[in-house]
Amino acid sequence: MNVNFAERAHNHNWKLDPIVRSLLDTDFYKLLMLQFIWKNFSQVQVTSEVTNRTVRVRLAERVGAPALIEQMEHVRQLRFRRSELVWLAGNTFYGTRWIFEPAFLDWLEHEFRLSAYTVSEHDGQLVLRFSGLWSAVTLWEVYALAIVSELKTRAALAELSELELDVLYARAKTRLWDKIELLRDPSLHGLSLSDFGTRRRHSFLWQEYCVQAMRRALNSNGRASEPEDQDRFSGTSNTALAYKHDLEAIGTNAHELPMALAALASRGSDDELRQSQYRVLELWQQSYGGSLLILLPDTFGTTQFLQAAPPFVSDWTGQRIDSKDPVVAGDEYIAWLESRGQDPRRKRLIASDGLDAEEILHLHRYFHGRIRFSAGWGTLLTNDFRGCHPRGEDTLEPLSLVCKLTSADGIPTVKLSDNPHKATGPAAEIARYRRVFGTEPTTGPEPVV
Amino acid sequence: MNVNFAERAHNHNWKLDPIVRSLLDTDFYKLLMLQFIWKNFSQVQVTSEVTNRTVRVRLAERVGAPALIEQMEHVRQLRFRRSELVWLAGNTFYGTRWIFEPAFLDWLEHEFRLSAYTVSEHDGQLVLRFSGLWSAVTLWEVYALAIVSELKTRAALAELSELELDVLYARAKTRLWDKIELLRDPSLHGLSLSDFGTRRRHSFLWQEYCVQAMRRALNSNGRASEPEDQDRFSGTSNTALAYKHDLEAIGTNAHELPMALAALASRGSDDELRQSQYRVLELWQQSYGGSLLILLPDTFGTTQFLQAAPPFVSDWTGQRIDSKDPVVAGDEYIAWLESRGQDPRRKRLIASDGLDAEEILHLHRYFHGRIRFSAGWGTLLTNDFRGCHPRGEDTLEPLSLVCKLTSADGIPTVKLSDNPHKATGPAAEIARYRRVFGTEPTTGPEPVV
Repeated sequence: MNVNFAERAHNHNWKLDPIVRSLLDTDFYKLLMLQFIWKNFSQVQVTSEVTNRTVRVRLAERVGAPALIEQMEHVRQLRFRRSELVWLAGNTFYGTRWIFEPAFLDWLEHEFRLSAYTVSEHDGQLVLRFSGLWSAVTLWEVYALAIVSELKTRAALAELSELELDVLYARAKTRLWDKIELLRDPSLHGLSLSDFGTRRRHSFLWQEYCVQAMRRALNSNGRASEPEDQDRFSGTSNTALAYKHDLEAIGTNAHELPMALAALASRGSDDELRQSQYRVLELWQQSYGGSLLILLPDTFGTTQFLQAAPPFVSDWTGQRIDSKDPVVAGDEYIAWLESRGQDPRRKRLIASDGLDAEEILHLHRYFHGRIRFSAGWGTLLTNDFRGCHPRGEDTLEPLSLVCKLTSADGIPTVKLSDNPHKATGPAAEIARYRRVFGTEPTTGPEPVV
Repeated sequence: MNVNFAERAHNHNWKLDPIVRSLLDTDFYKLLMLQFIWKNFSQVQVTSEVTNRTVRVRLAERVGAPALIEQMEHVRQLRFRRSELVWLAGNTFYGTRWIFEPAFLDWLEHEFRLSAYTVSEHDGQLVLRFSGLWSAVTLWEVYALAIVSELKTRAALAELSELELDVLYARAKTRLWDKIELLRDPSLHGLSLSDFGTRRRHSFLWQEYCVQAMRRALNSNGRASEPEDQDRFSGTSNTALAYKHDLEAIGTNAHELPMALAALASRGSDDELRQSQYRVLELWQQSYGGSLLILLPDTFGTTQFLQAAPPFVSDWTGQRIDSKDPVVAGDEYIAWLESRGQDPRRKRLIASDGLDAEEILHLHRYFHGRIRFSAGWGTLLTNDFRGCHPRGEDTLEPLSLVCKLTSADGIPTVKLSDNPHKATGPAAEIARYRRVFGTEPTTGPEPVV
């Protein structure tokens, strides 16, 4: 009776279901870093590389290079839309208007292009390499990771019947809702968390579902509430979702900045190398102020970073913990702030490393009243399908996919991190960095996601 | 771009979303009993009544009489469709063709009408009464129960947001699938179960979902399998679903037959009253043979029924247990069969009283190899939303709704049952029946559903 003939024909004919449909479908900090790079390092050439730290999974056997290239090419022909640029120009981020300069937005509109890339296979793994100007390479990170992650999802979903798909999503929703119920606990005060799950998400639509579920369940949406009972869900790192759903875009910066600056400084003296980790902060501070001053001190080891930090560093707004036990790292940061005459209760502590709901609650309870704690909830928010597969297979479990800068102006980059499993770079360079920064290899848990 | 204007306008304009959309949307045994009544008791006048045994729930405060009447009137103007009558005429039920006589189908098509009814409210409860020719009253039972049950569901759903609805169904599906996983246990052999959940279902669509899930998960659908590993899901009591999905229609007869025959005999001697419970079997046997010869011995107490049963009763195919502990009742039936020289392994034992997956497995393991056990899974298949409500309310939990014959030709009907909580009828009549049948009031659990 009521057949939509056009829709039916369209559904049978479409050629590509794009994973990334807008250049805003990236973490907000990539755009902040892009402006920083455009302004300060416009001529630096870099390479970066996607790797799968979950080596037991032979990813190339699940995701074919042609499908990957098709999706990458789709992203490469995307342009920032006029409405997106207007939003970037006019919106308020972290309480500040005009964070993006008109000249940068003009460049984004007219000159920005993603770099070339290569896709190859090695020992069952896909190898994805990007090289070119840093400003043309940097945004690839999130697009590429999200594409690989969702292609892996699609390959697994293609094995399932309609009923099995239905069961799968019922289970994942039940799981998500059970977590959200924990986070709704009315006895909690001041809880603050955000979505950091773009790069390893199950799919774009699932991330969007998770974000909408969190907002509706954890925020007042205009209802009256106690002063301390602010909205618990503070926003999303995903710029497209922030734009589409009127949420705060969350995030500041990542390891690629200190890694690149260290590589560029590494041709000089050991002291120049050591100081590069603070040089990046000076430059960042020139570009951005206010709430965007979030330290990421673990690139070459947190302890040495804090001990040797010049006075201006303790004026920064807060710290993000990405590789150390958050309890240890938070206590260390609080003690350091106090030793520098700072009041930790006016500072922010952001945990973002493999968190799940119970750990978020544990950390909130541990730090509440001592420092402004907030959680960046990533892969276990947007891709927790563990045990949900209707045939008990593990094909929908998240991988520890990463995209790391491997060189800057031809010099290899290094990351030591507080977790030796997360160290990257050539062995000889790692050894030199360890000596220079005085960072001993410690033991830590292997990253789950 | 691609708006379906017609659909959108239609969705905003519709006046009634019918709950019962076909006269086949009833338990198959109602149709078997209808033919039996049409043939043998075409002039008997009866009354029957819907009651809510879960009295703590004030149903009339949730379901309004106008909405109920609107749905009832919709059913009353339905007719058996030509294609449905062709299917009833030509299909094979329990391996037998032409179970329905041409004259009966002709009557169904041209003369069958549902009786008049009244809807009133008493002490927070809805009171629904039907009176008229037995053949015009009997089918109301399942339509009315399913309508009340789904109207209650709709009232609860109307309180929920789209997201809450999504969460609710995710939880219910996860629950259902967890149960089905139990029933898929590959170490089991010969498991047999069917859907008996029409009358207290959450909704028609949910029952359909449950039935399709069971069929796809538990049946081979044409794949090769071990001889003993037959399809575990043997069919549904719902005739409309059996028709629509090519499933076996399951069911034989219910308490209303012995209740009415006892009432009609009760003007005579005690012995005539006592013998009426076997008289109904003789008449049934004249109408139907083969697998349709399933005893329902608990109307006036199972033990007395078996002890005094004439020889022909032990030739019947099996027994349905509806109010006694199935382990006790099954053992009793097996011992009785052996005492009558029958091989229990050639007989069928059907449990149908408030079962859930774990009890089905328990009973299967207990009886497997001793008798052909099968389970009629009802309310906890098609309406298990316990604990699924997103705000923790109990408005979606199933009620113990029943529809019982209250009189035949002006004489009150009585059911004693093996569970005194399920006894119905005027106290004086119950007392006489207990004396005549020698059935002592025993104690038993209150029915959950």
